Order: sequence, then C-alpha cells, then structure tokens
Amino acid sequence: MTIELIAYLGEIIGTAILILLGNGVVANVLLARTKGHDSGLIVITFGWAIAVFTAVFISAPLSGAHLNPAVTLGLALAGKFAWGLVPGYFIAQVIGAFIGQCVAVLAYRDHYRATEDSGLVLATFSTDPAIPRSSSNVLTEAIGTFVLVFAVLYITGPKFGDSPGSLGALDALPVALVVLGIGLSLGGPTGYAINPARDLGPRIAHAALPLRHKGDSNWSYAWVPVVGPLLGAAVAAGLWHFVPVAL
Amino acid sequence: MTIELIAYLGEIIGTAILILLGNGVVANVLLARTKGHDSGLIVITFGWAIAVFTAVFISAPLSGAHLNPAVTLGLALAGKFAWGLVPGYFIAQVIGAFIGQCVAVLAYRDHYRATEDSGLVLATFSTDPAIPRSSSNVLTEAIGTFVLVFAVLYITGPKFGDSPGSLGALDALPVALVVLGIGLSLGGPTGYAINPARDLGPRIAHAALPLRHKGDSNWSYAWVPVVGPLLGAAVAAGLWHFVPVAL
Amino acid sequence: MTIELIAYLGEIIGTAILILLGNGVVANVLLARTKGHDSGLIVITFGWAIAVFTAVFISAPLSGAHLNPAVTLGLALAGKFAWGLVPGYFIAQVIGAFIGQCVAVLAYRDHYRATEDSGLVLATFSTDPAIPRSSSNVLTEAIGTFVLVFAVLYITGPKFGDSPGSLGALDALPVALVVLGIGLSLGGPTGYAINPARDLGPRIAHAALPLRHKGDSNWSYAWVPVVGPLLGAAVAAGLWHFVPVAL
Amino acid sequence: MTIELIAYLGEIIGTAILILLGNGVVANVLLARTKGHDSGLIVITFGWAIAVFTAVFISAPLSGAHLNPAVTLGLALAGKFAWGLVPGYFIAQVIGAFIGQCVAVLAYRDHYRATEDSGLVLATFSTDPAIPRSSSNVLTEAIGTFVLVFAVLYITGPKFGDSPGSLGALDALPVALVVLGIGLSLGGPTGYAINPARDLGPRIAHAALPLRHKGDSNWSYAWVPVVGPLLGAAVAAGLWHFVPVAL
Repeated sequence: MTIELIAYLGEIIGTAILILLGNGVVANVLLARTKGHDSGLIVITFGWAIAVFTAVFISAPLSGAHLNPAVTLGLALAGKFAWGLVPGYFIAQVIGAFIGQCVAVLAYRDHYRATEDSGLVLATFSTDPAIPRSSSNVLTEAIGTFVLVFAVLYITGPKFGDSPGSLGALDALPVALVVLGIGLSLGGPTGYAINPARDLGPRIAHAALPLRHKGDSNWSYAWVPVVGPLLGAAVAAGLWHFVPVAL
Repeated sequence: MTIELIAYLGEIIGTAILILLGNGVVANVLLARTKGHDSGLIVITFGWAIAVFTAVFISAPLSGAHLNPAVTLGLALAGKFAWGLVPGYFIAQVIGAFIGQCVAVLAYRDHYRATEDSGLVLATFSTDPAIPRSSSNVLTEAIGTFVLVFAVLYITGPKFGDSPGSLGALDALPVALVVLGIGLSLGGPTGYAINPARDLGPRIAHAALPLRHKGDSNWSYAWVPVVGPLLGAAVAAGLWHFVPVAL
Repeated sequence: MTIELIAYLGEIIGTAILILLGNGVVANVLLARTKGHDSGLIVITFGWAIAVFTAVFISAPLSGAHLNPAVTLGLALAGKFAWGLVPGYFIAQVIGAFIGQCVAVLAYRDHYRATEDSGLVLATFSTDPAIPRSSSNVLTEAIGTFVLVFAVLYITGPKFGDSPGSLGALDALPVALVVLGIGLSLGGPTGYAINPARDLGPRIAHAALPLRHKGDSNWSYAWVPVVGPLLGAAVAAGLWHFVPVAL
Repeated sequence: MTIELIAYLGEIIGTAILILLGNGVVANVLLARTKGHDSGLIVITFGWAIAVFTAVFISAPLSGAHLNPAVTLGLALAGKFAWGLVPGYFIAQVIGAFIGQCVAVLAYRDHYRATEDSGLVLATFSTDPAIPRSSSNVLTEAIGTFVLVFAVLYITGPKFGDSPGSLGALDALPVALVVLGIGLSLGGPTGYAINPARDLGPRIAHAALPLRHKGDSNWSYAWVPVVGPLLGAAVAAGLWHFVPVAL
C-alpha cells in the first residue's frame, strides 16, 4: 500500500472507533434497558474522551489521527498538513464515522428495538441543540471547535516534523482531555459535535439504516455542526499564526 | 524459578488482583449496606479501569500482563507471543481469577451475608446480559473485545521486542483507559466481560463457595463471554495484519 | 514581538481559555435548559481541572502559564520569577479572564436568556461563600491557594532554569490534578476561587455586560477571593524557602 | 538540616497535605451546607486519590513520600528502607496527620458549627465500619493495604537505587490511581483507612479539638485500622520476596 492509502485507511479505522465508542456511550445512557441507562453527563463526556484517546492511539501511526475535518482544515491552514490530502481525509472521516455508527447499532441492536422514542434514537446518531437557534448554535460549535483546534496546534508543536500534521500516540491523552473539557464546559447548548464527520456520517447512517423506531433525521440542522466547526478551526489557525512561540 | 514459571505466577497474581479489584467494585455497588451502595456506572467503570491499571502494573515485569485469554490469543495470532505458552497462560488466568474472586468474597463477607437477592450476588461474580439473546450477546462481547485487543496490538507496538507479547508497566495506563472506554461505551448490553477468564473463574467460584444467599450460577450463559471475546480477538488480529504501520 | 509582549499575550490567551472552560462548565450545570443541567460537583470540578490543563498546555510555551496572580506572586516570592514582570502579568490575567467570560456568555447566550434566577447567573461569573463570614472565607481561600502554590513550587522544580517561573506543557497534568483536588476537598465553603483574576475579571464582566436577568454583582465579597489567595501564596512561598530539597 | 531531619519534615508536610485534602473531601461531602454536600462516592474516592497525588508529589524529593506507616513497614521488610528511620517516620506521619486534620477543620469551621450530627463529624476525622465486626474489618483493611503496599513495591522497582525506599514525583500518579482503585473496590466495608496514621492522627485531633457537636471518638475501633494495614503490609512484603522479577 502507498503511504496515502494507509493514511486514508487509518482515518477510516480511527474515525470508526471514535464513533463506535463515542456514540456507544450515548446509546448506553439513552437507550432502554441498558446497564448504563440514565447514568448522566459525566459518563457521556468520559466515554467520548476515551473514544478520542483510543482512536488517536490506534490511528496515530497510520494517519496522524485527525479523525475530524475541522482538525484537518486547521492543520492545513496552519501549514502543518498537505492540502492535497485534505479531500481524501474528509471523505475517509465521513466513511469511518458511517461504519463506526453501524457497528455501534449492531452492538446495541436489541436496545434499539426496545427503545420507542425516536428522538432518543436520533440522539445516539447525531447532535441536536438544547435551544434551537441557528446563529447561536453555529457560534457555540465554532467556539468549542476553536478550543479543540487551537489546542491541537500547540499539542502538535510549533515545528514542522517528519510527519507534518500528525498527532502521535503520546498526544492521545492530551487531546482526549481537551475533548473531555469541551464536552463538560461547552457541550451544554449543542452537545458538542465539534467535528463535521462525527455528525454527518452517523446522520447518513440514520437515514440509511432500517431501524424500527426511527423518526426524521433532522436534516435541517445538519449544516450547523459542519459549518460551525470549520469556522472555529479557521479562527484557531488564524490566531495561532498571530502568536509566535517564545519559550 | 524458570522464566516460564515466573510468567505463569505473574498471570495468576495479576489476574487475581484484576478480579479482586474488578469484582470488588461491583460488590461495593451492589451488595447491601456497603459505603458504595448504588453509586452508579461511573464508579463501576472506573473501578474496573483501575483494576486493570494495578494488575498490569504489577504483572508486567513478570508475565507481560495479558490477564485475559482473548489478549493472549490476539497476541499469539499477531505473531507477538509464543504459542507454546498459550495453554499455560489460559490456565493461570482462570486460576488467578478464581483466587481473586475468593479474596473479594473475604473482603466483603459480612455484606454477602447481608444481601438476600441471589441475582445481585451472582452479578458480583459473573456477567449477565441486560436483554438475553445469545446471538446479540456474543456479537456485543466480540465487538468490545475487538476494540481491546486491537488497541493492545497498537499499544504493544509494531515491532518484535526482547519480550514478545508483553505489556510493560508504562502500558498500564493506556490499557486501563481503553477498558474504561469499553465499559462506558459498549458495556450497556452485556456488562463487558471481554475476558473469558474474568467470567469463568468467578463463575466456578460462585458454584464452589458456600454462600448463604446463593442461587443458580447461570451456566447456560457461561459460553457467551468465552466465545464472544475469543472471536473478537481473532478479528482484531486479522485486521491488524491487514493494516501496515506507515509513520 | 518582544519576549515580554508574547508573555503578556500568552497570559491573556491562557487565562481567557481558563475562564471560558472553567465558567463554561458552571454555566452548563447551573443555567436553564442545558444538556448538563444539575449534573453535580464531579462535573464542575473535572471541568475546571481540564480548563487548567488546556490553558496551561497552550500558554506554557508563551508565558510559562501562571494564569493566576497568586501563582505569579508565589513564584516571584520564591525567587523563580522576575518582579519586573509581575504587574504586567497581573493586568494580563484580569484582561484574559474578562475576555474568556465574555466568550462563555456568547457560547451560552440563549441559556442566559432562559435563566431567570439572577443568583445562578452571578454564580456563573464569580464565586460566593456557602456560609458568608469574611474571616472564615478568607482563611479557606488562603488554605486552598496555599496548596496550589506550594504544589506549583515543587512542580516547577528546585532549580532555576532558562525560563524562570515557568510551567511547561508537561506540567499541565499535575497542576490540573492539584486543582481538581482543591476543588473536591477545599471547595466546599467558598467555591475555590484560589485565583484573584478568576474572580475579579468575570465580576467586572458581570457588571459591564447587558444581561437580561442580572442582579447585583456582590462587590462587597469581591475582596475576599483577592486577599485570601494572595495570603495563601505568600505563606506557601515562605514555607517552601524553609524546607530544602534533599533527594 | 540533616538529611534525616529533612526526611522527617517531609513526612510531616506530606502527611499533613494528605489528610487536609483527604479528610477535606469527606468534610465537603458530609458536613452541612457545603457546596459538595452529598455528592457521592465518586467525589470522595477522587478526592482521596488526588490527596495522595499532591502529597506524594510534594514530599517525594524530601522523604520519598511514604506518608503511611504500612508503606514504611512494607518497604523496610522488603529491604528497601533503613530500619533505623522507621520509628521517626511513624511519629512524623502521625504528627503530620494531626496537623493536616486541624487545618481541614479550620477550612470548614463554619460547616462544623452547622453540622449537628456527631457521627458525621467523627466520619470527617476517622474511619468506621459499615458492619462492625472486628475480624472482618481487620481482614478487609489488611486486604486493601496488601494491594497498596504490593503495588508500591513494584512501583518503586525491583532494584536498590540511590534513595532506597523512595517514591519519586513521577510515582505520584500510579500510587494515586492505586489508592483510587482501593477506595472504589475495597472501601465498601470499612472506608479504606489502609494507613494507621491516616486514622490515628485525626482521631487524636477529634479527641483534642473543642468542637461544638462532638460525640465519642470511638476508641474501641481505633486498633483495627492500625493492625489491619500493618498485617497487610507484612503479607505484601512476604509475597514480593517470593516472586522474582523476570522481564
């Protein structure tokens, strides 16, 4: 395999694990008759954080563990990642998210059958706002993603390395902690998508899969967790360029 | 002692500590009149994660800290562990799990006397499904163990070392975090055995120990947390072979 | 930019992120209709800890990540930071806290509109005591800050380095854990400001911003989380001078 | 100061911080009108874990961070610590625990006044069993301390170093995680003293301090959290001698 193909494969595998564990914990908390039913925000935020940890750890040696179009965009804008790979990374991330969601549905299939509330079912796929209002929701997603991408730009260091734009396995814990923090602190209004692929891939899966208690896929909201994160990533890269590292 | 004997002893000690702390936290949450009674999923999942951390830390310099037949199988299939040691590791892991369970029962003996619900008592030994259905339960256990073994194959690195198949003390934290994530995200349907010895050793102890409020040991379910994890480990090793490491 | 200007900018950015995430989690728990509403102390303390982690990680290479006038004072008193930079750091920290608070209000703006209890609104800006009594509240804040600054003096090591007074990126986790511990253990009476800028900057923002359900900014308490932390920092630096490092 | 005097001072300071933060979190959860009132086992166990982290971090360069007579005994029995220093360490640990408890009472003094249940007040000083029965309680304390000391013997490594018996600052996190695990998994029956000084020092403080709502200091139980932990430490050192390190 070529380096590029391995990288795309790494993004597919990594994003699949991210969504399997990330939406797995949402399924555990929201679906009927699970052992984790109604176990609260601390469970959801830690579950997503460890999803990031595991996915970064595994995909770091393959693709540099972006797993998120906003991260890919931010690294490219910061001059830390080749623009030519950006479209392939985007596609791989959405494919991986779709696959991971399908595996999560398999793992919880009896619980999807037992859950009659179609709103809860959709919430185990994609995000929705606590108070719907597009301008506010885009802003909140942009702020959360700004923190993620700005931190990633410092975690990946100020210098170009041999593998530009990459997170290494040792970066898995810092990134996971940052995502934990964003979930706890900025997840209140929109449920912190902060990743277009994390929202879009599962929403496509929701539309495609033959679930018993399925309602609308809420496509009218789908643009918010795409546009907000990409905006936040752009602002993060801009501020990062402005502040040189001194020490 | 020979290296092999030390390794088997390490697996016994490590798996005993894993089960002592792992089923200790379940006892704390489920048994009557404990200080942790009914303290929720976050307590159980962190308790199991630290059980893994402590057990790996201690047994890493002795045996490479497999503590789980699925991990041993996955490492052997990946060419990272000698097949000749596999049967001894399996036996040592089940013996260790049995011993650890007995010590956990000693630590909570007054609380076992105070707990009259035999279903709760069994749940402090072995796993049971939230919704019993063999095909789904095997699948969920396989998916959870796939994540564990796939991550372990990356945590142990792409290269053969001087001690093939080993986890080192520094790997204790990543493995513990991955198990935390599996518990939070994929533990909802079956309570994440993801380890044949973790389920079988304590189930044998349940059958053998003279507990006051003891019911059936639910042997009809016992094959699920053996077959599911071994399947998941095989798939993980297969995928790992398919994806070369690039960076 | 000069080194000094980069350092001041680093303190502004770092303290802004600290308050954005730190008071973000308070907003998530206290404001109406959020996804984290009423999710408890464990969420608040972890949210603040990760706020510290993220802010230290990002500002460490710029300014040494003080983010807190009490830390700056403690490091200066310990001979680990230049007195000439102290006033600029103080000002940058308060400016950063003000900015971070404004961004947090933007992220939660619909939820501020939906929250009618002006006491809860103020609690997402500044601290208040569970039992108001100035002498006790100053003492509790001093004790909490003593632990923080004393730990920071050991985390930054016994020796002068090339960048005196600095926390590095690798110190982000220990400092975050210490702040987690102070919140859990010593936050009960006053809500652990342990940082004059963390309380003063957001209180100024509360007075300045045109919020719908806004009450009094409680200026009569504002001196406590300034004086208490600075006292605690001074005692920490004094004890640190008294105890030489042996091993 | 001599090395010995610095070491004793380090044990006093470290154990004081351990008890300040450790019993601080118990006060936060149990006393009336605190911000952490009734926030549950996850808060208590994390609070104690970070208490260990902070105390080990600070006292490691001074005394090797034993902070616990059972740890000192285990290290001496394992040949990793000089017997001549053992009595001084024991005394310093009890003195430190007494001081730390007094500071915790100062930090929460208004809340001690507001708490009328003398049983809750005592519980913020010393441990008590959920089901009182001396033989079981000693056994549970011995098992918990066995895990702690056995882990510490592996964390401190198989070899004699320049500072025998010492924990370093980098060992603070593993030890804290092990104590978190013991609390979650084995704290159910007796509240995991696992440290004679942690129980005895605060019990002396309870007897000595002029608290308003003070009941009996329960001296009849005081021997259990002394004898159990020392027994567990002895067994841990014995098993450790028996198992040579192979890898």
